[in-house]
Amino acid sequence: TPAPSGSVRLAVIGGDGIGPEVTAEALKVLEVAAPDGVGFEQTAYDLGAERYLATGEVLPDSVLAEIREHDAILLGAVGGKPNDPNLPPGILERGLLLRLRFELDHYVNLRPSRIFPGVTSPLADPGDVDFVVVREGTEGPYTGNGGALRVGTPAEIATEVSVNTAYGVQRVVRDAFARAARRPRKKLTLVHKTNVLVHAGSLWWRTVQAVATEFPDVTVDYIHVDAAMIFLATDPARFDVVVTDNLFGDILTDLAAAITGGIGLAASGNVNPDRTSPSMFEPVHGSAPDIAGQQKADPTAAILSTSLLLDHLGYADAAAAVEDAVVADLADREPGSTRRTSEVGDAIAARVAG
Amino acid sequence: TPAPSGSVRLAVIGGDGIGPEVTAEALKVLEVAAPDGVGFEQTAYDLGAERYLATGEVLPDSVLAEIREHDAILLGAVGGKPNDPNLPPGILERGLLLRLRFELDHYVNLRPSRIFPGVTSPLADPGDVDFVVVREGTEGPYTGNGGALRVGTPAEIATEVSVNTAYGVQRVVRDAFARAARRPRKKLTLVHKTNVLVHAGSLWWRTVQAVATEFPDVTVDYIHVDAAMIFLATDPARFDVVVTDNLFGDILTDLAAAITGGIGLAASGNVNPDRTSPSMFEPVHGSAPDIAGQQKADPTAAILSTSLLLDHLGYADAAAAVEDAVVADLADREPGSTRRTSEVGDAIAARVAG
Ligand SMILES: CC(C)[C@H](C(=O)O)[C@@H](O)C(=O)O
Ligand SMILES: CC(C)[C@H](C(=O)O)[C@@H](O)C(=O)O
Repeated sequence: TPAPSGSVRLAVIGGDGIGPEVTAEALKVLEVAAPDGVGFEQTAYDLGAERYLATGEVLPDSVLAEIREHDAILLGAVGGKPNDPNLPPGILERGLLLRLRFELDHYVNLRPSRIFPGVTSPLADPGDVDFVVVREGTEGPYTGNGGALRVGTPAEIATEVSVNTAYGVQRVVRDAFARAARRPRKKLTLVHKTNVLVHAGSLWWRTVQAVATEFPDVTVDYIHVDAAMIFLATDPARFDVVVTDNLFGDILTDLAAAITGGIGLAASGNVNPDRTSPSMFEPVHGSAPDIAGQQKADPTAAILSTSLLLDHLGYADAAAAVEDAVVADLADREPGSTRRTSEVGDAIAARVAG
Repeated sequence: TPAPSGSVRLAVIGGDGIGPEVTAEALKVLEVAAPDGVGFEQTAYDLGAERYLATGEVLPDSVLAEIREHDAILLGAVGGKPNDPNLPPGILERGLLLRLRFELDHYVNLRPSRIFPGVTSPLADPGDVDFVVVREGTEGPYTGNGGALRVGTPAEIATEVSVNTAYGVQRVVRDAFARAARRPRKKLTLVHKTNVLVHAGSLWWRTVQAVATEFPDVTVDYIHVDAAMIFLATDPARFDVVVTDNLFGDILTDLAAAITGGIGLAASGNVNPDRTSPSMFEPVHGSAPDIAGQQKADPTAAILSTSLLLDHLGYADAAAAVEDAVVADLADREPGSTRRTSEVGDAIAARVAG
């Protein structure tokens, strides 16, 4: 797919809490990193907890329709104060974040994990960690299938249904193999729980085996999700590309972020590889309302998300330049440094400008 | 409930691989630890991969009926060689382990995690870790509900259904609160994913809130399962009693075992607190066929499981004696020591006797 040239239409959802602050720095870096002749035509969308509390709206259909007309989406973070009685639990997660992922068919939720030089891991001896999780984004236990009966009575029953289709599993597995084939180690690990979740597990495992024949250079590995936790704690360097379902991917990637220096550094892309709709890039962290508006937030994860965005748009060199600038900045950070959010953005932008 | 006195009927399932070896050491310690006048009347049951490969039987109904007539079950480990073509994946897990847990209504899957003195954690600075996970054992995504359609075609769909009932959630939550109330810190953390799995999540959260009124001394905390991973990697000392569903508990407890020194030390109890059927105690580790029969396996987890067994039977002093002996043995272990399985058992048994 040729990269859009000239003008890239970018929908920007700063969101709540520290979201707008880190997004401002991400945009700063993006402007500097853009290849010659490429400009980002930004439209800001006011969505999130504040918008909901003010108007009762989460994601109006008309706004979704507008967002669809963009080349990409940059998202900061959404979420209000913990336990705000006016904010029903999960309403933004499902009504905004997950709705965007599902409506825009972001079937590849891409989450790289790497221990950058200078970054401290909580693990005493993590080794050389550099892997990427390809988390399925449109199926599994996240579909909102399931329900409840006799709610509030002693006879209540609540179900959650994990939905897995050949269509959905194949496309994400094929994407993961293609990524593995492009990496030096060329290794793909399926993480699932095939010994208990036999129907879904069997579909995932058969699909991996079938798609493997298209990628003879890629080594295939399988680990149960519980054992994967042990490896992440004791030998995370063993992973290269991990493919897994929506819920396992959620759990795995937070642990992966923790052992590689924290969710302050974890970037993600909600990608539609077929480009039938705009992909969305966001830091894995939340809106951290306790430190909002104080220029205390670390914008690194948001900035790294723009590297994924640039790469997705086909600007591989610009993507690498952003990542390199972040790597250099991290290596130079003083322990206990208290640079302001904008100072970190300025420093990284200056390195990209070079 | 008064402890059975005189003779305790113990069903022993050594299983496969290192299972029989570690079980022998657990029994050695159990004999020594038994209070005066209490004897363990053992019946060995030959179940597991070998039995299945030889006879095609996993858990005959008649054997299950016999096992039911015991006061407790001690299990080593089951599982054959990886990828044995004659062993359908998951057949022992579901047909034996999970079948026992479900048939015997082991609704409390008890998994303590503690960093014992002298034990090395993969975390650089784990802090003072001592918590217990109360994992639900008879519901959730482990029920085998769900199914598949058009298997093997491009239109395949596979579902897994997590089943959660007020009956099932309440009893395990109440058990977890009672355990929290007996511990010094008196803190209970619910781990779930209420913002996405809204039906099940709501039932769990409402149940925790309702049962909390019966335990006013216990502090209640809630963490999403993904965030719980981060805390386990960065601040595991924050946990006291964790209550969670079957699948989240599976994932959490393997990570908990990893950060507290490995599954070589992790004990577990599949407990029926109502004592309507025998509870089952087993190390969390598997059958490790690669080192079977070589006296290389560490029997510590199996031995610690007998401490849980003794405690469940009401022999609190004997349970403490076993745990203390293990703690003392661990503190004295030489780094890189290669004691044989039986030597470890002998040493711990001697300390209990001592
Ligand atoms: C906020 C929540 C719905 C979301 C998820 O579970 O996917 C988040 O945890 C993430 O990983 O992006
Ligand atoms: C073997 C498997 C079925 C089992 C589980 O998932 O419960 C194991 O992982 C455990 O944690 O005891």
